[in-house]
Amino acid sequence: MNVDGKPHRTIWLKPGDDSIVQIIDQRYLPHRYIIEDLRDHRAGVTAIRDMLVRGAPLIGATAAWSLYLACLESQDSERQLPFLQAAADALMATRPTAVNLRWAIRRVMESLSEVSGNDARARIARAQAEAICEEDVEICRSLGNHGLALIEDLARSKRGEPVNVLTHCNAGWLATIDWGTATAPIYLAHQRGIPVHVWVDETRPRNQGANLTAWELAQEGVPHTVIVDNAGGHLMQHGQVDICITGTDRTASSGDVANKIGTYLKALAAKDNGVPFYVALPSTTIDWEATDGLTEIPIEERPADEVSSVSGIDRRGDLVDVRITPENSPAKNYAFDVTPARLVTGLITERGICSASEQGLRSLFPERDATHRI
Amino acid sequence: MNVDGKPHRTIWLKPGDDSIVQIIDQRYLPHRYIIEDLRDHRAGVTAIRDMLVRGAPLIGATAAWSLYLACLESQDSERQLPFLQAAADALMATRPTAVNLRWAIRRVMESLSEVSGNDARARIARAQAEAICEEDVEICRSLGNHGLALIEDLARSKRGEPVNVLTHCNAGWLATIDWGTATAPIYLAHQRGIPVHVWVDETRPRNQGANLTAWELAQEGVPHTVIVDNAGGHLMQHGQVDICITGTDRTASSGDVANKIGTYLKALAAKDNGVPFYVALPSTTIDWEATDGLTEIPIEERPADEVSSVSGIDRRGDLVDVRITPENSPAKNYAFDVTPARLVTGLITERGICSASEQGLRSLFPERDATHRI
Repeated sequence: MNVDGKPHRTIWLKPGDDSIVQIIDQRYLPHRYIIEDLRDHRAGVTAIRDMLVRGAPLIGATAAWSLYLACLESQDSERQLPFLQAAADALMATRPTAVNLRWAIRRVMESLSEVSGNDARARIARAQAEAICEEDVEICRSLGNHGLALIEDLARSKRGEPVNVLTHCNAGWLATIDWGTATAPIYLAHQRGIPVHVWVDETRPRNQGANLTAWELAQEGVPHTVIVDNAGGHLMQHGQVDICITGTDRTASSGDVANKIGTYLKALAAKDNGVPFYVALPSTTIDWEATDGLTEIPIEERPADEVSSVSGIDRRGDLVDVRITPENSPAKNYAFDVTPARLVTGLITERGICSASEQGLRSLFPERDATHRI
Repeated sequence: MNVDGKPHRTIWLKPGDDSIVQIIDQRYLPHRYIIEDLRDHRAGVTAIRDMLVRGAPLIGATAAWSLYLACLESQDSERQLPFLQAAADALMATRPTAVNLRWAIRRVMESLSEVSGNDARARIARAQAEAICEEDVEICRSLGNHGLALIEDLARSKRGEPVNVLTHCNAGWLATIDWGTATAPIYLAHQRGIPVHVWVDETRPRNQGANLTAWELAQEGVPHTVIVDNAGGHLMQHGQVDICITGTDRTASSGDVANKIGTYLKALAAKDNGVPFYVALPSTTIDWEATDGLTEIPIEERPADEVSSVSGIDRRGDLVDVRITPENSPAKNYAFDVTPARLVTGLITERGICSASEQGLRSLFPERDATHRI
């Protein structure tokens, strides 16, 4: 999508130097637009763990590109496979909730185990990383088209008034390679001239909504308003939300959805007020093995200082952290919660929209069965 | 309650100078403890409007003391009553949601209209302001005792494990004169040696939870943990909350409760997880005229920069505002929401606990009827 009017992606090979992967350091948005070079797989590990990149699909893609970098690092090694396995393990340990991470790592590692020769492995790893990115772009565009139909339907009944979409966290193009998941239907609607307005939950503790989603939407010219995470219920009580669309970091085969902490509260409010609540997901985020999201999806606990501090730009234009809690008050930081399938109106996937249920998912992905390991 | 080990209240006459009312400037907590002098009623208007003081009972008390200051200002005036009426009007216009404000102003003005002579009016205004404060302390202590029974019950079934209370915003002693409303049962339980732990919602946009409730609890030595507003649902899904207790700015006679934005979302989560959800309120916050909270209680909209900025202390120890949103992204700031009575397990009042319903409230306050204007 656009940055200063020019199309960008979230991860790419540096033009003129195939040994360097480039990303946007998303920790500095919306205040600074900083490109970071990843020169080895450890830089990829750091980028994922310290959240220079975030969002399930982009985490997967970054892991894949990191394995390509690991191939380059060990180009001359006679024992390359153990080195790559250690790199894969380090990448796997960065974030526990997103299922794309392990999906992407397994996909690349399986391809690499099938070839011999370090040069061949580097070529294969690069091809896989590129494929993962291209496929993700197509998946997002495709699920965007399915979600667009929902917005078009709502637009018809609103007779020229904007369709109000509420979203939580950032499931935008910054969380994927391009288009985003929850935002893809919004961008497509906006490009087709359907009036749309987005309520952007700021999404504490890391404020990915206020920082990233608002920035993305502003760069594309999509009308939006930032609200605190507390406000969505009130808006829904007063008819100011026509549809909720969020992303997901992992969807159980039962249709339970793990997403950024607070998603569950918005789903409850949507249910209570008859507002449709949709989750947009590439099928790579489906955990076919998990049948009960609440007990089977691990919830990452992150450092307490993300809660006790807030990052922003001060009057001098400096990016600073400010502490909001008393010095001796402890804080806890659960990064995700699970929204039970019963609260989800439907899942928007690249193959269409289905009910949030095992039956619904299997109707779109009949080739899967519960015992198939991804 | 204690500040640095010494008992304090939130508003008092300056020792040795009866013409000055003193308050804590709560905007600087927990980082600075600043006492502010109110020397005329305009200072009181500013203190309420700019939220140096907040919380329904304290707002009411500040308005009462401001009318006392207005009496002193107009001590020599031959047309004192119109001056006092203008002061009352200015005070009334500061905050639209809290019902105590208008209750306190009407109470003082009615007493003043019954006496003649400027000296008598000053004495009456002072007596009324003092009475409002003393009554509030007794009310809070009394509702604390009723709420304590709930915590004692839970403690019995937890067999020595702490009772986990979740609260939203600040309904602590800083919101009242002493004890607080939602916190009164907690302080009493703690003083009696019942193990209790409080989950403190940070309460964006103004972070009264992270700033004020956490500070209060720390000063009293009550174990607590600050969480983002998004986290409560997840905690309740995992059995980590035994009871929710919040305050209220206005309760409709139907039992619908207006409180800080986001309260409704926590009440939904409590209902969904079978967690009891109580609201602690002095009967001064009951709006006997309002029968439908959702349509009849006005919801204050506050400046957008409270959403786009966060206030905290930087690395140098300076208290600064940082902007978290992109420069051109608009924001909206609804200060309260309404929790429907059906989500409220019970109302804790100074006369006991009742169901959140007209019947429940009337059983405790039989002297009231719907047509009686407060």
